[in-house]
Amino acid sequence: MIQKLISSIQKTGAPVVVGLDPMLSYIPESMQRKAFAEYGETLAGAAEAIWQFNKAIVDAVYDLIPAVKPQIAMYEQFGIEGLMAFKRTVDYAHEKGLVVIGDIKRGDIGSTSAAYASAHLGKIMIGDKTYAGFDEDFATVNPYLGSDGVEPFIKVCKEEKKGIFVLVKTSNPSSGEFQDRPVADADNRPLYEIVGKQVAAWGETCMGDSYSYVGAGVGATYPEMGKILRDLMPKSYILVPGYGAQGGKGSDLKPFFNADGLGAIVNSSRGIIAAYKQEKYAAFGPEGYADAARAAVLDMREDIAQGVGL
Amino acid sequence: MIQKLISSIQKTGAPVVVGLDPMLSYIPESMQRKAFAEYGETLAGAAEAIWQFNKAIVDAVYDLIPAVKPQIAMYEQFGIEGLMAFKRTVDYAHEKGLVVIGDIKRGDIGSTSAAYASAHLGKIMIGDKTYAGFDEDFATVNPYLGSDGVEPFIKVCKEEKKGIFVLVKTSNPSSGEFQDRPVADADNRPLYEIVGKQVAAWGETCMGDSYSYVGAGVGATYPEMGKILRDLMPKSYILVPGYGAQGGKGSDLKPFFNADGLGAIVNSSRGIIAAYKQEKYAAFGPEGYADAARAAVLDMREDIAQGVGL
Repeated sequence: MIQKLISSIQKTGAPVVVGLDPMLSYIPESMQRKAFAEYGETLAGAAEAIWQFNKAIVDAVYDLIPAVKPQIAMYEQFGIEGLMAFKRTVDYAHEKGLVVIGDIKRGDIGSTSAAYASAHLGKIMIGDKTYAGFDEDFATVNPYLGSDGVEPFIKVCKEEKKGIFVLVKTSNPSSGEFQDRPVADADNRPLYEIVGKQVAAWGETCMGDSYSYVGAGVGATYPEMGKILRDLMPKSYILVPGYGAQGGKGSDLKPFFNADGLGAIVNSSRGIIAAYKQEKYAAFGPEGYADAARAAVLDMREDIAQGVGL
Repeated sequence: MIQKLISSIQKTGAPVVVGLDPMLSYIPESMQRKAFAEYGETLAGAAEAIWQFNKAIVDAVYDLIPAVKPQIAMYEQFGIEGLMAFKRTVDYAHEKGLVVIGDIKRGDIGSTSAAYASAHLGKIMIGDKTYAGFDEDFATVNPYLGSDGVEPFIKVCKEEKKGIFVLVKTSNPSSGEFQDRPVADADNRPLYEIVGKQVAAWGETCMGDSYSYVGAGVGATYPEMGKILRDLMPKSYILVPGYGAQGGKGSDLKPFFNADGLGAIVNSSRGIIAAYKQEKYAAFGPEGYADAARAAVLDMREDIAQGVGL
């Protein structure tokens, strides 16, 4: 799957992921009204509105980008019905040829991580039959529990030719509270570097042609740390959130890329799917949100190409 | 909810949580056959078998214990249908008066953690109506992203009088890989102590009568670390996994408790729900799994009372 991701990035010229993190407040009122008329002001109604919203976004941008990244929390808040909209979104993105990165940030003790890995990347046996629960292509994984919490994901990645992005240095303001602490038995290097080195070690165990199935998550908001981590994990793709709404700019992104012009893929969520709320794209109006998203993707591709020098 | 948890612990004399982490292999064949006959060898069939299995466990033990802890990964691996069984289990445990700890180990950047907090502990507005997605009483939370990833959970805890257990030192063998690293700018104390201190600080912002809504997760497999963390977080309830199948014994548990005999609640999953697979309870047989679970809960209560000196 890392090969498919890389070839799609090369084909589109866009190391861009569109984050499908819908909020009801992003969805045009007419679309909400239609869903509520059919299902009531219920979890099912909200889930229908989200699904219709996502579908139009995917239709508007699928030819421009390699991948989408639905953030499962935004669906989980609508309970079972929300998760059904998540699954429909995953399946529809696959129909459109997109790589799907499940932003799930799971991680647990070994036997439980194995269950999460089956749920999102693998399959489960029931009697003589096998089923996939959610069937994303990549998943984000939290490393706090250490190797035996991550390795079950790697095992499934090997079996299914799928991939993970391990959180190393997250994009949020307080990510440094624990991640940046200097580790005394590692020359006072910050914890995220220790995690990054471990990502490189995990990655060596399951290589694609030039990059590993094991990637890392490093926030666009921390480009200097990105540079160090790029060097520590040369064979790991870096998923870079925090572009756009969280403050990252194209010119911040160069450190995340390798000299081959590969090695990073940049996510934008709000900045694309709610682009019509920005002054720059306001002319599209709420009803034109999908066209606004397409325009914002084109601008993002250009901004990254200029900033990174692709 | 922390008050309800404490009064239930006092009433039952059992600081015991039964972990509802079902695997198909725990479920008696006759029960699986019945579910598959009705729903086929499908995700829905597996979910039905799990739900029936859980229901009988809850029926067999609800009068002995204060709380259950369904591990959502074990349901998530069966996709939407599995999560429906999770929700049914949560609701049924509530009907039986039990406190429900959702073992979800979520944690993300602020806006996303807010969505997870709504999903599991809070409510969501749809038009003029409010709905709860999964509606557990407590949730486990991963701290790797720092304060702004945890505070949205605390906000919902205050609004809804619910609680969280933040992972501090996990029970798994490789938990030390990152959690035990000595932090140079904190007198070389291990990272889990830094996290533990932060749990205490978070906890001070939302106190019940004597304990906080913000608790911690510390593995039974690390009693010496438990003692240090007990002192660092005197007002935080400690959820202690790793008893039984993972190797923790009653005599290891004393350090996790305060002098008031409170402050810790001990989880056993496999050791209870699959007790019939142990030699000690083999006479119950697979069909007697729920009675075996009841016997194992009684033994666990006794083992803890003796080990801790309650």
